[in-house]
Amino acid sequence: MTLEELSSRQRAFADARAWGPFHTPKNLVMALTGEVGELNELFQWLTPEEAAAAPDDPDARARIEDEMADVLLYLVRLADVLGVDLIAAGNAKIDRNETRFPPDVGRTALER
Amino acid sequence: MTLEELSSRQRAFADARAWGPFHTPKNLVMALTGEVGELNELFQWLTPEEAAAAPDDPDARARIEDEMADVLLYLVRLADVLGVDLIAAGNAKIDRNETRFPPDVGRTALER
Amino acid sequence: MTLEELSSRQRAFADARAWGPFHTPKNLVMALTGEVGELNELFQWLTPEEAAAAPDDPDARARIEDEMADVLLYLVRLADVLGVDLIAAGNAKIDRNETRFPPDVGRTALER
Amino acid sequence: MTLEELSSRQRAFADARAWGPFHTPKNLVMALTGEVGELNELFQWLTPEEAAAAPDDPDARARIEDEMADVLLYLVRLADVLGVDLIAAGNAKIDRNETRFPPDVGRTALER
Repeated sequence: MTLEELSSRQRAFADARAWGPFHTPKNLVMALTGEVGELNELFQWLTPEEAAAAPDDPDARARIEDEMADVLLYLVRLADVLGVDLIAAGNAKIDRNETRFPPDVGRTALER
Repeated sequence: MTLEELSSRQRAFADARAWGPFHTPKNLVMALTGEVGELNELFQWLTPEEAAAAPDDPDARARIEDEMADVLLYLVRLADVLGVDLIAAGNAKIDRNETRFPPDVGRTALER
Repeated sequence: MTLEELSSRQRAFADARAWGPFHTPKNLVMALTGEVGELNELFQWLTPEEAAAAPDDPDARARIEDEMADVLLYLVRLADVLGVDLIAAGNAKIDRNETRFPPDVGRTALER
Repeated sequence: MTLEELSSRQRAFADARAWGPFHTPKNLVMALTGEVGELNELFQWLTPEEAAAAPDDPDARARIEDEMADVLLYLVRLADVLGVDLIAAGNAKIDRNETRFPPDVGRTALER
Protein backbone atom coordinates (compact mmCIF):
# COMPACT_ATOMS: atom_id res chain seq x y z
CA MET A 1 0.00 0.00 0.00
CA THR A 2 1.26 3.48 -0.84
CA LEU A 3 0.82 6.66 1.21
CA GLU A 4 -1.56 7.90 -1.47
CA GLU A 5 -3.70 4.77 -1.16
CA LEU A 6 -3.73 5.14 2.62
CA SER A 7 -4.89 8.74 2.16
CA SER A 8 -7.69 7.63 -0.18
CA ARG A 9 -8.84 5.02 2.31
CA GLN A 10 -8.78 7.59 5.13
CA ARG A 11 -10.82 10.01 2.99
CA ALA A 12 -13.42 7.33 2.21
CA PHE A 13 -13.60 6.50 5.92
CA ALA A 14 -14.31 10.14 6.79
CA ASP A 15 -16.79 10.56 3.94
CA ALA A 16 -18.75 7.47 4.98
CA ARG A 17 -19.26 9.06 8.40
CA ALA A 18 -19.96 12.56 7.06
CA TRP A 19 -17.03 13.88 9.10
CA GLY A 20 -16.01 16.36 6.41
CA PRO A 21 -17.43 19.40 8.25
CA PHE A 22 -15.31 18.54 11.30
CA HIS A 23 -12.15 18.02 9.30
CA THR A 24 -11.25 21.68 8.91
CA PRO A 25 -7.53 22.55 8.82
CA LYS A 26 -7.53 23.99 12.35
CA ASN A 27 -9.45 21.05 13.79
CA LEU A 28 -7.11 18.56 12.13
CA VAL A 29 -4.03 20.40 13.40
CA MET A 30 -5.48 20.18 16.90
CA ALA A 31 -6.27 16.47 16.45
CA LEU A 32 -2.74 15.88 15.19
CA THR A 33 -1.47 17.70 18.27
CA GLY A 34 -3.56 15.50 20.54
CA GLU A 35 -2.08 12.35 19.05
CA VAL A 36 1.47 13.68 19.30
CA GLY A 37 0.67 14.39 22.95
CA GLU A 38 -0.31 10.75 23.44
CA LEU A 39 2.92 9.65 21.79
CA ASN A 40 4.83 11.83 24.27
CA GLU A 41 2.96 10.16 27.13
CA LEU A 42 4.24 6.74 26.05
CA PHE A 43 7.86 7.86 26.33
CA GLN A 44 7.87 10.63 28.94
CA TRP A 45 8.98 8.66 32.00
CA LEU A 46 11.30 6.22 30.25
CA THR A 47 15.06 6.52 30.46
CA PRO A 48 16.78 6.81 27.06
CA GLU A 49 17.69 3.11 27.37
CA GLU A 50 14.13 2.06 28.24
CA ALA A 51 12.82 4.10 25.31
CA ALA A 52 15.21 2.42 22.89
CA ALA A 53 14.16 -1.02 24.18
CA ALA A 54 10.42 -0.27 24.12
CA PRO A 55 9.81 -1.80 20.66
CA ASP A 56 11.09 -5.16 21.97
CA ASP A 57 8.11 -5.40 24.31
CA PRO A 58 5.02 -6.50 22.36
CA ASP A 59 2.57 -4.46 24.44
CA ALA A 60 4.69 -1.32 24.32
CA ARG A 61 5.25 -1.81 20.58
CA ALA A 62 1.51 -2.12 19.98
CA ARG A 63 0.84 1.12 21.87
CA ILE A 64 3.62 2.95 20.02
CA GLU A 65 2.42 1.74 16.62
CA ASP A 66 -1.13 2.72 17.50
CA GLU A 67 -0.16 6.30 18.41
CA MET A 68 2.21 6.70 15.47
CA ALA A 69 -0.61 5.48 13.20
CA ASP A 70 -2.91 8.14 14.65
CA VAL A 71 -0.30 10.83 14.02
CA LEU A 72 0.20 9.64 10.44
CA LEU A 73 -3.53 9.40 9.73
CA TYR A 74 -4.26 12.96 10.87
CA LEU A 75 -1.23 14.26 9.00
CA VAL A 76 -2.35 12.47 5.85
CA ARG A 77 -5.91 13.72 6.29
CA LEU A 78 -4.71 17.31 6.79
CA ALA A 79 -2.59 17.05 3.64
CA ASP A 80 -5.61 15.76 1.72
CA VAL A 81 -7.82 18.62 2.94
CA LEU A 82 -5.14 21.23 2.15
CA GLY A 83 -4.15 19.67 -1.19
CA VAL A 84 -0.57 19.03 -0.08
CA ASP A 85 1.56 16.24 -1.60
CA LEU A 86 3.31 15.03 1.55
CA ILE A 87 6.01 12.93 -0.09
CA ALA A 88 6.93 15.69 -2.53
CA ALA A 89 7.01 18.22 0.33
CA GLY A 90 9.21 15.94 2.42
CA ASN A 91 11.58 15.28 -0.46
CA ALA A 92 11.84 19.00 -1.27
CA LYS A 93 12.59 19.68 2.40
CA ILE A 94 15.50 17.22 2.40
CA ASP A 95 16.79 19.03 -0.71
CA ARG A 96 16.78 22.30 1.26
CA ASN A 97 18.29 20.62 4.32
CA GLU A 98 21.17 19.31 2.19
CA THR A 99 22.07 22.97 1.60
CA ARG A 100 21.34 24.22 5.10
CA PHE A 101 23.31 21.49 6.83
CA PRO A 102 26.38 20.49 4.80
CA PRO A 103 27.51 17.01 5.87
CA ASP A 104 30.72 18.16 7.57
CA VAL A 105 29.00 20.62 9.88
CA GLY A 106 27.94 17.75 12.12
CA ARG A 107 26.78 18.46 15.63
CA THR A 108 27.15 22.22 15.24
CA ALA A 109 24.13 22.27 13.00
CA LEU A 110 22.05 20.75 15.76
CA GLU A 111 23.20 23.43 18.15
CA ARG A 112 22.21 26.16 15.72
CA MET B 1 8.90 8.31 -4.59
CA THR B 2 7.48 6.02 -1.91
CA LEU B 3 7.38 6.65 1.83
CA GLU B 4 9.97 3.91 2.23
CA GLU B 5 12.30 5.64 -0.23
CA LEU B 6 11.81 8.94 1.60
CA SER B 7 12.71 7.18 4.85
CA SER B 8 15.88 5.74 3.29
CA ARG B 9 16.90 9.16 2.04
CA GLN B 10 16.25 10.69 5.47
CA ARG B 11 18.33 7.95 7.11
CA ALA B 12 21.21 8.52 4.68
CA PHE B 13 20.99 12.26 5.41
CA ALA B 14 21.28 11.66 9.15
CA ASP B 15 24.05 9.10 8.74
CA ALA B 16 26.12 11.47 6.58
CA ARG B 17 26.04 13.97 9.45
CA ALA B 18 26.60 11.40 12.19
CA TRP B 19 23.33 12.49 13.81
CA GLY B 20 22.46 8.95 14.90
CA PRO B 21 23.36 9.52 18.56
CA PHE B 22 20.94 12.48 18.70
CA HIS B 23 18.14 10.57 17.04
CA THR B 24 16.98 8.66 20.09
CA PRO B 25 13.25 7.92 20.35
CA LYS B 26 12.65 10.55 23.05
CA ASN B 27 14.61 13.21 21.18
CA LEU B 28 12.74 12.51 17.96
CA VAL B 29 9.37 12.64 19.73
CA MET B 30 10.37 16.06 21.09
CA ALA B 31 11.53 17.22 17.65
CA LEU B 32 8.25 16.00 16.14
CA THR B 33 6.43 17.96 18.84
CA GLY B 34 8.39 21.10 18.00
CA GLU B 35 7.39 20.89 14.35
CA VAL B 36 3.74 20.27 15.19
CA GLY B 37 3.98 23.37 17.37
CA GLU B 38 5.22 25.38 14.37
CA LEU B 39 2.32 24.03 12.31
CA ASN B 40 -0.06 25.25 15.02
CA GLU B 41 1.55 28.69 14.85
CA LEU B 42 0.71 28.98 11.15
CA PHE B 43 -2.99 28.47 11.82
CA GLN B 44 -3.58 29.75 15.35
CA TRP B 45 -4.91 33.24 14.60
CA LEU B 46 -6.77 32.41 11.39
CA THR B 47 -10.55 32.15 11.26
CA PRO B 48 -11.81 28.79 9.96
CA GLU B 49 -12.43 30.49 6.60
CA GLU B 50 -8.95 32.01 6.45
CA ALA B 51 -7.44 28.63 7.33
CA ALA B 52 -9.34 26.89 4.53
CA ALA B 53 -8.17 29.54 2.04
CA ALA B 54 -4.53 29.52 3.19
CA PRO B 55 -3.37 27.01 0.52
CA ASP B 56 -4.50 29.45 -2.19
CA ASP B 57 -1.84 31.93 -1.11
CA PRO B 58 1.56 30.86 -2.48
CA ASP B 59 3.53 32.17 0.53
CA ALA B 60 1.18 30.60 3.06
CA ARG B 61 1.16 27.35 1.09
CA ALA B 62 4.97 27.25 1.06
CA ARG B 63 5.11 27.72 4.84
CA ILE B 64 2.45 25.06 5.43
CA GLU B 65 4.18 22.56 3.14
CA ASP B 66 7.48 23.27 4.86
CA GLU B 67 6.10 22.57 8.34
CA MET B 68 4.12 19.52 7.25
CA ALA B 69 7.29 18.21 5.62
CA ASP B 70 9.16 18.64 8.91
CA VAL B 71 6.43 16.76 10.78
CA LEU B 72 6.51 13.94 8.23
CA LEU B 73 10.30 13.71 8.22
CA TYR B 74 10.58 13.37 12.01
CA LEU B 75 7.70 10.88 12.08
CA VAL B 76 9.39 8.82 9.35
CA ARG B 77 12.72 9.03 11.13
CA LEU B 78 11.16 7.93 14.44
CA ALA B 79 9.51 5.00 12.69
CA ASP B 80 12.85 4.02 11.16
CA VAL B 81 14.63 4.17 14.53
CA LEU B 82 11.87 2.16 16.24
CA GLY B 83 11.47 -0.35 13.41
CA VAL B 84 7.84 0.60 12.78
CA ASP B 85 6.18 0.17 9.37
CA LEU B 86 4.15 3.39 9.27
CA ILE B 87 1.89 2.51 6.36
CA ALA B 88 1.05 -0.91 7.80
CA ALA B 89 0.39 0.67 11.21
CA GLY B 90 -1.87 3.31 9.65
CA ASN B 91 -3.77 0.74 7.63
CA ALA B 92 -4.25 -1.52 10.66
CA LYS B 93 -5.53 1.48 12.60
CA ILE B 94 -8.20 2.23 9.98
CA ASP B 95 -9.21 -1.44 10.27
CA ARG B 96 -9.74 -0.96 14.01
CA ASN B 97 -11.50 2.37 13.48
CA GLU B 98 -13.96 0.70 11.09
CA THR B 99 -15.07 -1.39 14.07
CA ARG B 100 -14.93 1.37 16.66
CA PHE B 101 -16.87 3.89 14.59
CA PRO B 102 -19.55 2.19 12.47
CA PRO B 103 -20.52 4.48 9.57
CA ASP B 104 -24.00 5.30 10.87
CA VAL B 105 -22.82 6.54 14.26
CA GLY B 106 -21.80 9.82 12.68
CA ARG B 107 -21.15 12.81 14.87
CA THR B 108 -21.81 10.93 18.09
CA ALA B 109 -18.55 9.10 17.68
CA LEU B 110 -16.70 12.39 17.64
CA GLU B 111 -18.34 13.38 20.89
CA ARG B 112 -17.20 10.13 22.48
CA MET C 1 -3.04 30.12 47.74
CA THR C 2 -0.19 31.58 45.72
CA LEU C 3 1.57 30.02 42.76
CA GLU C 4 4.63 29.60 44.95
CA GLU C 5 2.61 27.69 47.55
CA LEU C 6 1.14 25.50 44.82
CA SER C 7 4.68 24.78 43.61
CA SER C 8 5.77 23.83 47.13
CA ARG C 9 2.82 21.49 47.51
CA GLN C 10 3.57 19.90 44.12
CA ARG C 11 7.22 19.45 45.11
CA ALA C 12 6.24 17.79 48.42
CA PHE C 13 3.87 15.53 46.50
CA ALA C 14 6.66 14.40 44.17
CA ASP C 15 9.16 14.00 47.01
CA ALA C 16 6.76 11.82 49.03
CA ARG C 17 6.62 9.43 46.04
CA ALA C 18 10.35 9.61 45.28
CA TRP C 19 9.53 10.83 41.78
CA GLY C 20 12.51 13.18 41.68
CA PRO C 21 14.58 10.95 39.36
CA PHE C 22 11.74 10.94 36.81
CA HIS C 23 11.26 14.68 36.98
CA THR C 24 14.13 15.62 34.71
CA PRO C 25 13.68 18.71 32.50
CA LYS C 26 13.20 16.69 29.31
CA ASN C 27 10.73 14.30 30.94
CA LEU C 28 8.71 17.19 32.37
CA VAL C 29 8.63 18.99 29.02
CA MET C 30 7.26 15.78 27.49
CA ALA C 31 4.69 15.40 30.28
CA LEU C 32 3.65 19.04 29.81
CA THR C 33 3.28 18.30 26.09
CA GLY C 34 1.08 15.29 26.82
CA GLU C 35 -1.28 17.39 28.93
CA VAL C 36 -1.45 20.15 26.31
CA GLY C 37 -2.34 17.39 23.84
CA GLU C 38 -5.24 16.32 26.08
CA LEU C 39 -6.41 19.94 26.28
CA ASN C 40 -6.40 20.06 22.46
CA GLU C 41 -8.52 16.90 22.39
CA LEU C 42 -11.23 18.60 24.45
CA PHE C 43 -11.61 21.40 21.92
CA GLN C 44 -10.59 19.87 18.58
CA TRP C 45 -14.03 19.03 17.14
CA LEU C 46 -15.93 21.98 18.61
CA THR C 47 -17.00 24.94 16.52
CA PRO C 48 -15.70 28.29 17.81
CA GLU C 49 -19.16 28.89 19.29
CA GLU C 50 -19.30 25.49 21.00
CA ALA C 51 -15.82 26.07 22.41
CA ALA C 52 -16.82 29.44 23.86
CA ALA C 53 -19.90 27.86 25.47
CA ALA C 54 -18.07 24.82 26.86
CA PRO C 55 -17.46 26.33 30.32
CA ASP C 56 -21.25 26.66 30.78
CA ASP C 57 -21.59 22.88 30.74
CA PRO C 58 -20.59 21.46 34.15
CA ASP C 59 -19.11 18.24 32.74
CA ALA C 60 -17.15 20.02 30.02
CA ARG C 61 -15.97 22.62 32.54
CA ALA C 62 -14.73 19.91 34.89
CA ARG C 63 -12.74 18.24 32.09
CA ILE C 64 -11.27 21.57 30.96
CA GLU C 65 -10.27 22.55 34.50
CA ASP C 66 -8.74 19.13 35.01
CA GLU C 67 -6.55 19.37 31.90
CA MET C 68 -5.60 22.99 32.53
CA ALA C 69 -4.63 21.99 36.07
CA ASP C 70 -2.37 19.26 34.68
CA VAL C 71 -0.71 21.74 32.31
CA LEU C 72 -0.17 24.20 35.16
CA LEU C 73 1.18 21.55 37.52
CA TYR C 74 3.81 20.27 35.07
CA LEU C 75 4.78 23.82 34.15
CA VAL C 76 5.16 24.73 37.81
CA ARG C 77 7.13 21.55 38.47
CA LEU C 78 9.45 22.22 35.52
CA ALA C 79 10.02 25.76 36.78
CA ASP C 80 10.85 24.40 40.23
CA VAL C 81 13.34 21.88 38.82
CA LEU C 82 14.98 24.50 36.60
CA GLY C 83 14.98 27.23 39.24
CA VAL C 84 12.76 29.55 37.19
CA ASP C 85 10.51 32.17 38.79
CA LEU C 86 7.47 31.80 36.54
CA ILE C 87 5.65 34.97 37.58
CA ALA C 88 8.76 37.10 37.18
CA ALA C 89 9.45 35.51 33.79
CA GLY C 90 5.87 36.14 32.65
CA ASN C 91 5.95 39.72 33.84
CA ALA C 92 9.29 40.39 32.12
CA LYS C 93 7.86 38.90 28.93
CA ILE C 94 4.90 41.31 28.97
CA ASP C 95 7.46 44.12 29.39
CA ARG C 96 9.18 42.95 26.21
CA ASN C 97 5.88 42.45 24.40
CA GLU C 98 4.89 46.05 25.20
CA THR C 99 7.88 47.09 23.08
CA ARG C 100 7.47 44.46 20.37
CA PHE C 101 3.76 45.13 19.84
CA PRO C 102 2.92 48.81 20.32
CA PRO C 103 -0.82 49.16 21.03
CA ASP C 104 -1.69 50.79 17.73
CA VAL C 105 -0.19 48.05 15.59
CA GLY C 106 -3.25 45.94 16.25
CA ARG C 107 -3.98 42.97 14.05
CA THR C 108 -0.86 43.46 11.96
CA ALA C 109 1.26 42.23 14.81
CA LEU C 110 -0.65 38.97 14.82
CA GLU C 111 -0.03 38.53 11.13
CA ARG C 112 3.69 39.00 11.57
CA MET D 1 3.03 39.98 41.88
CA THR D 2 0.39 37.28 42.06
CA LEU D 3 -0.84 35.05 39.24
CA GLU D 4 -4.12 36.96 39.31
CA GLU D 5 -2.30 40.27 38.86
CA LEU D 6 -0.30 38.80 35.99
CA SER D 7 -3.58 37.68 34.40
CA SER D 8 -5.04 41.18 34.77
CA ARG D 9 -1.97 42.72 33.17
CA GLN D 10 -2.15 40.22 30.31
CA ARG D 11 -5.83 40.99 29.79
CA ALA D 12 -5.15 44.75 29.70
CA PHE D 13 -2.36 44.12 27.19
CA ALA D 14 -4.72 42.20 24.89
CA ASP D 15 -7.53 44.74 25.32
CA ALA D 16 -5.23 47.66 24.42
CA ARG D 17 -4.51 45.92 21.11
CA ALA D 18 -8.12 44.83 20.48
CA TRP D 19 -6.93 41.21 20.33
CA GLY D 20 -10.06 39.92 22.05
CA PRO D 21 -11.62 38.52 18.85
CA PHE D 22 -8.48 36.46 18.19
CA HIS D 23 -8.32 35.12 21.73
CA THR D 24 -10.96 32.43 21.32
CA PRO D 25 -10.49 29.22 23.33
CA LYS D 26 -9.41 27.17 20.31
CA ASN D 27 -6.98 29.83 19.10
CA LEU D 28 -5.43 30.15 22.56
CA VAL D 29 -5.06 26.37 22.89
CA MET D 30 -3.23 26.39 19.54
CA ALA D 31 -1.03 29.32 20.64
CA LEU D 32 -0.25 27.49 23.89
CA THR D 33 0.67 24.44 21.82
CA GLY D 34 3.00 26.51 19.66
CA GLU D 35 4.88 27.78 22.71
CA VAL D 36 5.16 24.31 24.21
CA GLY D 37 6.58 23.25 20.85
CA GLU D 38 9.24 25.96 21.14
CA LEU D 39 10.06 24.77 24.65
CA ASN D 40 10.55 21.26 23.28
CA GLU D 41 12.93 22.64 20.65
CA LEU D 42 15.19 24.07 23.36
CA PHE D 43 15.64 20.67 24.96
CA GLN D 44 15.21 18.15 22.16
CA TRP D 45 18.87 17.47 21.26
CA LEU D 46 20.31 17.80 24.78
CA THR D 47 21.38 14.79 26.80
CA PRO D 48 19.64 14.51 30.19
CA GLU D 49 22.83 15.90 31.75
CA GLU D 50 23.01 18.85 29.35
CA ALA D 51 19.35 19.60 29.98
CA ALA D 52 19.86 19.64 33.74
CA ALA D 53 22.83 22.01 33.34
CA ALA D 54 21.09 24.35 30.87
CA PRO D 55 19.91 26.85 33.53
CA ASP D 56 23.56 27.46 34.49
CA ASP D 57 24.23 28.99 31.08
CA PRO D 58 22.91 32.58 30.99
CA ASP D 59 21.91 32.46 27.31
CA ALA D 60 20.19 29.10 27.62
CA ARG D 61 18.45 30.24 30.82
CA ALA D 62 17.15 33.37 29.09
CA ARG D 63 15.71 31.31 26.24
CA ILE D 64 14.12 28.82 28.62
CA GLU D 65 12.58 31.56 30.76
CA ASP D 66 11.28 33.28 27.64
CA GLU D 67 9.51 30.16 26.36
CA MET D 68 8.17 29.19 29.79
CA ALA D 69 6.83 32.72 30.12
CA ASP D 70 5.03 32.36 26.79
CA VAL D 71 3.50 29.07 27.91
CA LEU D 72 2.37 30.63 31.21
CA LEU D 73 0.95 33.74 29.54
CA TYR D 74 -1.20 31.80 27.06
CA LEU D 75 -2.35 29.43 29.81
CA VAL D 76 -3.28 32.37 32.02
CA ARG D 77 -5.05 34.09 29.12
CA LEU D 78 -7.00 30.92 28.27
CA ALA D 79 -8.04 30.59 31.91
CA ASP D 80 -9.20 34.21 31.91
CA VAL D 81 -11.25 33.73 28.73
CA LEU D 82 -12.81 30.52 30.04
CA GLY D 83 -13.37 31.82 33.56
CA VAL D 84 -11.13 29.21 35.15
CA ASP D 85 -9.34 29.79 38.48
CA LEU D 86 -6.00 28.16 37.65
CA ILE D 87 -4.62 27.98 41.18
CA ALA D 88 -7.84 26.49 42.57
CA ALA D 89 -7.93 23.99 39.69
CA GLY D 90 -4.31 23.01 40.29
CA ASN D 91 -4.84 22.63 44.00
CA ALA D 92 -7.97 20.52 43.49
CA LYS D 93 -6.00 18.32 41.08
CA ILE D 94 -3.30 17.65 43.67
CA ASP D 95 -6.11 16.68 46.06
CA ARG D 96 -7.30 14.09 43.54
CA ASN D 97 -3.75 12.94 42.82
CA GLU D 98 -3.20 12.32 46.54
CA THR D 99 -5.96 9.71 46.29
CA ARG D 100 -4.98 8.32 42.89
CA PHE D 101 -1.30 7.91 43.75
CA PRO D 102 -0.85 6.94 47.42
CA PRO D 103 2.71 7.80 48.51
CA ASP D 104 3.87 4.20 48.87
CA VAL D 105 2.93 3.18 45.34
CA GLY D 106 6.03 4.90 44.02
CA ARG D 107 7.26 4.16 40.52
CA THR D 108 4.40 1.78 39.80
CA ALA D 109 2.05 4.69 39.56
CA LEU D 110 4.17 6.18 36.81
CA GLU D 111 3.99 2.94 34.89
CA ARG D 112 0.21 2.89 35.07
